[in-house]
Amino acid sequence: MLIVGELINTSRAAIKPAVESRDATFIKEIAQNQVDAGADYVDVNCGTVVSNEAETMAWLVETIQSHINAPLCLDSPNPEVLNTGLSLIKNGQPMINSITAEKERFTKVLPLVLRFKAKIVCLCMDDSGIPKTAADRLKIAVKMVGDMVEAGVPEDDIYLDPLVQPVSAAGQAGLEVLKTIYGIKQKYPKVHGICGLSNVSYGLPNRKILNQVFMIQTMTMGMDGYILDPLDQSMMGFVYASQALLGEDKFCMKYLTAHRRGLYA
Amino acid sequence: MLIVGELINTSRAAIKPAVESRDATFIKEIAQNQVDAGADYVDVNCGTVVSNEAETMAWLVETIQSHINAPLCLDSPNPEVLNTGLSLIKNGQPMINSITAEKERFTKVLPLVLRFKAKIVCLCMDDSGIPKTAADRLKIAVKMVGDMVEAGVPEDDIYLDPLVQPVSAAGQAGLEVLKTIYGIKQKYPKVHGICGLSNVSYGLPNRKILNQVFMIQTMTMGMDGYILDPLDQSMMGFVYASQALLGEDKFCMKYLTAHRRGLYA
Repeated sequence: MLIVGELINTSRAAIKPAVESRDATFIKEIAQNQVDAGADYVDVNCGTVVSNEAETMAWLVETIQSHINAPLCLDSPNPEVLNTGLSLIKNGQPMINSITAEKERFTKVLPLVLRFKAKIVCLCMDDSGIPKTAADRLKIAVKMVGDMVEAGVPEDDIYLDPLVQPVSAAGQAGLEVLKTIYGIKQKYPKVHGICGLSNVSYGLPNRKILNQVFMIQTMTMGMDGYILDPLDQSMMGFVYASQALLGEDKFCMKYLTAHRRGLYA
Repeated sequence: MLIVGELINTSRAAIKPAVESRDATFIKEIAQNQVDAGADYVDVNCGTVVSNEAETMAWLVETIQSHINAPLCLDSPNPEVLNTGLSLIKNGQPMINSITAEKERFTKVLPLVLRFKAKIVCLCMDDSGIPKTAADRLKIAVKMVGDMVEAGVPEDDIYLDPLVQPVSAAGQAGLEVLKTIYGIKQKYPKVHGICGLSNVSYGLPNRKILNQVFMIQTMTMGMDGYILDPLDQSMMGFVYASQALLGEDKFCMKYLTAHRRGLYA
């Protein structure tokens, strides 16, 4: 299981002003809190800062790395911004979020994956957009995995993201994601799955509950990576409970440790 | 989805004295509350009353039916007790809980299933006990379904129970159940799955959370029946949320109705 802490994202109201004012103390604290809460990677996304995204990414990477040892997940659709951030990485293996099967993006991001030996989030979409069905998502996944492995990316570094869409807009949207991840794990047992959760509940009440249920559903089908808020104790409690029940937590040790830490109080 | 309300069971501390003192008002209220909360069937189990189980079953069936219209699930390992209760059924199609592949029990319960055209809960065990693996449970399931269908039981009336065991005793216990239900639905799409949930969490803290997660996990793999406490709002909330996300709730109508009823408040 790989948890990527999603909080350092300038699209969030609490983060934007802190980044704009270069409030290093605040950013370091958010990074530290996510790691303390169980994040394996810390996502860094300043995509809303269009005027100087690369400079902002550089500041964030250096600031966060000066305070925590956990590896970072650099999150941008812009290959130049990714390159700037990746060049500054000191903490372990970086993760890139993300590549797609769009021709231009694939061509520009793949060399970064190889050069920085990064883990890579692969969105199951191409130049036609996000496919509706699991079958079409799987076609894209197979093409991307094939091309990346041929280029020298280890299967274990690949994290396929089926792209979660709202069930309020299409009733089968959740099911197609479940089928996609099941299909991926059947075909490539070493390749990982990763996703964000909140899109699934868009337009419906009690979104936290729906997001939690969808985490449990996707994990049951083989998803083994999530981009989420690790400070959400309820969500993290469900992560550990799910792992214990799936036999992925020997003697339920992680679950019992989380319990003793008061996660279920 | 079929929800069987489990509360009327003399092994429960609140129920035993009410049944012994023939407190019809209390029993009727528990039955009504379960139906109001979403139970499709009301389970009736007086197995702890060994001295006069048949007479007690008769009283319970008549008492409950005098007050509610929902069908009943008669729960006893004793075929004579089942026969006594089934003979008194007036409300719709009864359910029998349960048959097994144990030779004597199968031979004695099957005629009741046929005579009363009942839905039937089939525990995946035989004279050697409960198998450890999904493969061995599936062998028993295939034998039972084959024998019952040959005898004239419609596939749609069969509810296979993989038999949930504690993950605290065997780390793979949950996974074997998930594989069993997946295997059953792949082989017999019309046959149903049903289970109780609480065994899975035996010996661990925060049992309610583990039981909820296991409900969501099993439903993801195709389980479509649960024997549970429908007055547990949190559990029922997760049932409706799971159905909405699995595309089993057109326009999320049942989920939105539950929300408006205050289930998630």
